[in-house]
Amino acid sequence: MEKREQIYEGKAKKVFATDDPSLCIVSYKDDATAFNGLKKGTISGKGVVNNRMSNRLMQLLSQDAGIPTHFVKELSDRDTLVKRVRIVPLEVIVRNVAAGSFSKRFGVPEGTDLLCPTIEFCYKNDELGDPMVNEYHIYACGWATREQVRSITDYAFRVNSYLSDFFLARGIILVDFKLEFGTLDDGTIVLADEISPDTCRFWDSATREKLDKDRFRRDLGGVEEAYGEMMKRVFG
Amino acid sequence: MEKREQIYEGKAKKVFATDDPSLCIVSYKDDATAFNGLKKGTISGKGVVNNRMSNRLMQLLSQDAGIPTHFVKELSDRDTLVKRVRIVPLEVIVRNVAAGSFSKRFGVPEGTDLLCPTIEFCYKNDELGDPMVNEYHIYACGWATREQVRSITDYAFRVNSYLSDFFLARGIILVDFKLEFGTLDDGTIVLADEISPDTCRFWDSATREKLDKDRFRRDLGGVEEAYGEMMKRVFG
Repeated sequence: MEKREQIYEGKAKKVFATDDPSLCIVSYKDDATAFNGLKKGTISGKGVVNNRMSNRLMQLLSQDAGIPTHFVKELSDRDTLVKRVRIVPLEVIVRNVAAGSFSKRFGVPEGTDLLCPTIEFCYKNDELGDPMVNEYHIYACGWATREQVRSITDYAFRVNSYLSDFFLARGIILVDFKLEFGTLDDGTIVLADEISPDTCRFWDSATREKLDKDRFRRDLGGVEEAYGEMMKRVFG
Repeated sequence: MEKREQIYEGKAKKVFATDDPSLCIVSYKDDATAFNGLKKGTISGKGVVNNRMSNRLMQLLSQDAGIPTHFVKELSDRDTLVKRVRIVPLEVIVRNVAAGSFSKRFGVPEGTDLLCPTIEFCYKNDELGDPMVNEYHIYACGWATREQVRSITDYAFRVNSYLSDFFLARGIILVDFKLEFGTLDDGTIVLADEISPDTCRFWDSATREKLDKDRFRRDLGGVEEAYGEMMKRVFG
């Protein structure tokens, strides 16, 4: 399967068409952005970490937790064949521990365990700054159907349950993470995008050291080392 | 029933204790604020309009729509006896037509009819700017129970249904509104606060003229006239 024309370039990935209209190739870059693109940089080797980790986690979620995903086949260290989907315009954020924008918005100190996991939806729109929306807003504006939101919510909590256990067994607290879902031509919802230190907060469970993109966002140093450490935890 | 010590002063109302610990007296002021207190002013006669209109609407909601409210008795043009409640720290916003912060946040032009009514919750906290939260956040942070949120949601949609019809029969579109709920000592949820041009968006259904606090917020002029017109529509 070979790359044909580029059909999309995002902040951290390029997507290429293939000869099969139902498949495309995702190519992971080392480019890093934060704060809706206001901060830009490069994290050397990030594309490889994110590609390989995301593929591994999607395979596990599919096999062990029954979550349908876009993953088809890893083609190289940075390139993966995936099912072509129409992305549902929602960022789906699941949280177990207060951190980041949650702490800031709601005045809950970072590191506070939540009484139960939360899910929140943001409308994917860079111009508007990906505003948080609720289910009523989604239906009232037609961004997704009730059935889609029900499936996405169910999958997101199951992903959280599976991955929280998976990471805890490897000495990592899954603090929060962002998922994106897409629809296949027949309307089936599948997990898409990526699951990586770019899209998850990972804290070492013993030291609470941050092993994710917050090291880049907050200029904490040791960014490449954190991504490398997470590779070891997942594959080691 | 007489006013004893003042137990609270808000932006538009004072609350006084009475000799009965289960009752208090709300006293409506003419003070107006907007944008989380950044804009301040006076709307002459507003306290009378809001007191009388809110009492009338709460009575109707109680009698005709089965909504329990804090209303007990109108004592004067500005003073009302109400049940003493513990306010649930959530602003409950119901919308039928896109306007205000909804339009700005989600890029939906003001005046767009929504596909279905929406409800949204904001955590009442001036320091944080009353941030929007969802049900998962409410449970995860312990701001209200699942049962309370279920009751509040049910009541809010029933209030919307009743008041939308009530106002439409009087040539007014109920665009959106904010409710607050409280709990009695036995845990019962009741509708509290007020329902007035301070807390609702009212548009004339023929001309779409704004007849609410947006005239103050947006410096449109004719503020007192708008409040007076709404009195006529409700009592005329």
